Amino acid sequence: MLTIHALTHNKWDNSLQPIATISDEEVITIETKEATDGQISPTSTAQELAKVDFNRIHPLTGPIEIRETKPGDAIEVEFLSFRDKGWGWTGVLPGFGLLADELYTSPIDLQGPSLKIWSVKDGIASAKFGDVNVRIPIFPFPGVIGVAMQERGKFSTIPPRKNGGNMDIKHLTFGTKLYLPVYVEGTLLSIGDTHLAQGDGEVCGTAIEAPIEMNIKVRVLKDVSLSQPMFISKSVKEMEFKEYIAYPGIDNNLWIAVKKAIKGIISILSQHMSPVEAYMLASVSVNLRVSEVVDVPNWIVTAYFPKDIVDVEFKIP
Amino acid sequence: MLTIHALTHNKWDNSLQPIATISDEEVITIETKEATDGQISPTSTAQELAKVDFNRIHPLTGPIEIRETKPGDAIEVEFLSFRDKGWGWTGVLPGFGLLADELYTSPIDLQGPSLKIWSVKDGIASAKFGDVNVRIPIFPFPGVIGVAMQERGKFSTIPPRKNGGNMDIKHLTFGTKLYLPVYVEGTLLSIGDTHLAQGDGEVCGTAIEAPIEMNIKVRVLKDVSLSQPMFISKSVKEMEFKEYIAYPGIDNNLWIAVKKAIKGIISILSQHMSPVEAYMLASVSVNLRVSEVVDVPNWIVTAYFPKDIVDVEFKIP
Repeated sequence: MLTIHALTHNKWDNSLQPIATISDEEVITIETKEATDGQISPTSTAQELAKVDFNRIHPLTGPIEIRETKPGDAIEVEFLSFRDKGWGWTGVLPGFGLLADELYTSPIDLQGPSLKIWSVKDGIASAKFGDVNVRIPIFPFPGVIGVAMQERGKFSTIPPRKNGGNMDIKHLTFGTKLYLPVYVEGTLLSIGDTHLAQGDGEVCGTAIEAPIEMNIKVRVLKDVSLSQPMFISKSVKEMEFKEYIAYPGIDNNLWIAVKKAIKGIISILSQHMSPVEAYMLASVSVNLRVSEVVDVPNWIVTAYFPKDIVDVEFKIP
Repeated sequence: MLTIHALTHNKWDNSLQPIATISDEEVITIETKEATDGQISPTSTAQELAKVDFNRIHPLTGPIEIRETKPGDAIEVEFLSFRDKGWGWTGVLPGFGLLADELYTSPIDLQGPSLKIWSVKDGIASAKFGDVNVRIPIFPFPGVIGVAMQERGKFSTIPPRKNGGNMDIKHLTFGTKLYLPVYVEGTLLSIGDTHLAQGDGEVCGTAIEAPIEMNIKVRVLKDVSLSQPMFISKSVKEMEFKEYIAYPGIDNNLWIAVKKAIKGIISILSQHMSPVEAYMLASVSVNLRVSEVVDVPNWIVTAYFPKDIVDVEFKIP
């Protein structure tokens, strides 16, 4: 079986030379770096996180050429298995994340930089948040997975687009089949920004970031009509927990509703940890559901925090 | 055990006289009407739905006085059990629902009025959508549950507010404990707009609407700090399915991202049914997750359609 080492690029650029070539139905192993290209290690500090060179963010393994693909085709990427490296990290950087514009005005102090190192063993990521032992079952996935864009030039990897990219969808894990359109001859698939676990939204701006190895199977679908990514997931139920603390964010602006929901969860978690730790814990664990978008003029986005991952009780209300 | 019959009101109004009075820790049975106050029955047609008198929408059973409660307290409502009446309905009304403003411009025809009657037996709601037999396990809940507002006057039941109300949160079902603030002496709890099943978002504007009976237990929490609803849910995992078709809506506006995700699912379901039927089926079944809100400038809301509830295959992509 082909192993593709972590030779990386960090711009979308359809003129890049492929680092490997694979065929329809091929199963391959891909090695990835973590999102800062090695600037963060298990011994890093928050101060080091603050000095990270953003020009090195999102090293993507690839591009990988897929034989006999051309514009108008699609590929199916089936996620078979993942192997962690025993650690991961979660951090908050000033100016980045859902609540970044409230960092200096919020009654709850969410100022970064802040960094949490996780140890990972037997499929569980562990870390201490305040006086809480947190244990999260890992479901690794690539934060970034995409194909070369149709447009010539170099494009940032930060926004997701119709070529996939930085989608940060937590269900792109075991058993999921992801479909991506093909825009150039040979497809040019790239994968990176791997996460061991993440909440919906990735609200603090990072998940449990980690280098991993993954096994995927790639299939070619000829001449199909696909205008953007879609996927089939068998992991939704498996990834859910027994009990949740849920906080509805109610607002006539959906974006503000998301913020209210997350701030509600942060406020509750802060009974046992600092607000910035709560922000990070929400980022790696909450479900974020659009509860209703029809009861004019107020919409609801609800954040669900899984109680199973902590060893303390929170006072409700 | 006290049974509270469906004596109803349909405005929030803290001057209303209670129809019943209960005590801390009391378990009660509550009967509800469906959302149109009996204007829709198992034999209704779409044309009758179009003529519904909106002034009668949201008949709420109540208000129910809770002894020894005052402003500054909170109540816990535990949902114990529900009994359906063997039927329910889902409908689209022109001008109402997530895609209402696209009704006459969309390439996919979503014009109402459209009405689907469900038969319910042994905890499963069944209906035919196009050539598809749909079977949805029911998890009944009140679309509207709230307490009298602090403000004097009559207020519409349509928007949810800090007193709860029309939250349409599907997880307010078996095993959930909902917490609501108390704003007036005696609380004045009201419940209605009951649903047998609903997707996140209630995107077409209706769920599986139905009259039901429910058993709840009410507890009084004295002098707590609660500024809006929150809840503890044990039903999230139980309500999930084995396999989903998922469509990410990618946009720099979260509202548009929701629309794109739902339109993606409608497009897929329309392989086997009319677009307006697909819109209704999405409304009663999809998960809507805020996948990421940090990858500037593009956010993702993903709609997940549960394959388990249909007896056909959809072509992907």
